[in-house]
Amino acid sequence: MLVFIGLGLQGEGISLRGLHEVQEADAVYAELYTSLVPGLDVKKIERQIGRPVKVVGREVIEQRPDEILDAAKSGKVAFLVPGDPMVATTHVDLRLRAAKAGIETKLVHAASIASAAAGLAGLQSYKFGRSATVPFPDNPSQTPYQVLAENRERGLHTLLLLDLRAEKNRAMTANEAIEIMLGLESKLQKKVFTPDTLAVVVARAGSADAIVRANKASNLRGFNFGPPPHVLIVPGKLHFMEAEALKVFAGAPADVVG
Amino acid sequence: MLVFIGLGLQGEGISLRGLHEVQEADAVYAELYTSLVPGLDVKKIERQIGRPVKVVGREVIEQRPDEILDAAKSGKVAFLVPGDPMVATTHVDLRLRAAKAGIETKLVHAASIASAAAGLAGLQSYKFGRSATVPFPDNPSQTPYQVLAENRERGLHTLLLLDLRAEKNRAMTANEAIEIMLGLESKLQKKVFTPDTLAVVVARAGSADAIVRANKASNLRGFNFGPPPHVLIVPGKLHFMEAEALKVFAGAPADVVG
Repeated sequence: MLVFIGLGLQGEGISLRGLHEVQEADAVYAELYTSLVPGLDVKKIERQIGRPVKVVGREVIEQRPDEILDAAKSGKVAFLVPGDPMVATTHVDLRLRAAKAGIETKLVHAASIASAAAGLAGLQSYKFGRSATVPFPDNPSQTPYQVLAENRERGLHTLLLLDLRAEKNRAMTANEAIEIMLGLESKLQKKVFTPDTLAVVVARAGSADAIVRANKASNLRGFNFGPPPHVLIVPGKLHFMEAEALKVFAGAPADVVG
Repeated sequence: MLVFIGLGLQGEGISLRGLHEVQEADAVYAELYTSLVPGLDVKKIERQIGRPVKVVGREVIEQRPDEILDAAKSGKVAFLVPGDPMVATTHVDLRLRAAKAGIETKLVHAASIASAAAGLAGLQSYKFGRSATVPFPDNPSQTPYQVLAENRERGLHTLLLLDLRAEKNRAMTANEAIEIMLGLESKLQKKVFTPDTLAVVVARAGSADAIVRANKASNLRGFNFGPPPHVLIVPGKLHFMEAEALKVFAGAPADVVG
């Protein structure tokens, strides 16, 4: 059996059920390249479960997962993944490979950035349109801008996830993302992300030192949000209570949220 | 201090950090009316933390939260909520009241149904448009149908949450929701939810006995999914891997997912 277990957003984000599943496993693997998990201490997990945790990289999961699948044929394998399992396509792929090899699979859920970031900002999750990822400039894409345009037209909020290259130890900051979005604005000119656009930066969601800041893009671009992970939210039409929350919990100036 | 702590989707969905926060609290409250949490055993939590948990109803949270706020002024209060905190508006309201009373607030995240249901069905979360709730027929609304129409136009998936009246011990089943959506279809005639529409039912997401079933609405309407909570997903345009996942993990007939 192969059990995908979410680590959530920070060091102690795994659920009690997740911990029990890990404790019962014959082998424990973890991947830490699809998202950053601040404060995650693999050694501590190893002490908690009294068993080694093998941290594997992208190439193992995507190119040669046979070691994991073979172990899952003969015993119970726990596979620890950042956030909530199956958010990354690569895990769906691994789960499909397992199923096709006749291996039973199970998911143990945990916090995901989409719900956490909305909650920290005080924005209602049912008012979010589709989300998108802002890629690094060497791999440019207009998708985040187009997704934002589509959502704004409907008054919906937009969550923008930021590119990560764990193997290169590079995670995009909200500041970089704001510059990239402003660059797309000057190119595409649809007035969907201007220096005056209200945006919300959520840094290290779920951690004790999380930062949530709402302001015009021009006022956020120079702010130091500390270490990644960061995400960017561009609110659509604000309900009264959402505007209140942005003022009280994200320091939004009254004239910006209206 | 007032700490909102997510219970996640089932009995052991709370995170390790959440458990530590509860253990450090001077008083512990819980509300269980915004969502169902199968397998949640408040007595077990009380044993784990060696302290009583006071379960409060809607009227306490919404009309007279002073007991909780007063306790949070003088000490640390843990407030346990289903799923991920702040998904329900009423918690944002309580957090705002606390902030205005000068009480520090904190969130401890947990699994939310949006991410979990998508993952269980093998659908990519970034391809979901906005979600909506299907209300009971005595309080009819066209919103879920309109949200679905809007998302389908864009090829996006739609998560439909189902109405709950915990105080009356009534939770809508996926079967009821399908009938309600088919009723809206015959009224509004936009061909967005017909008997031939591919839908996915996720029952008891996160629990050991979770069920995930994908098929035409006409083939799902009579199926017994067991006890609630249920949700309904209406997929938009399917990526190849999503179609595969619906076949392998949700039993979708090949001719239905193409």
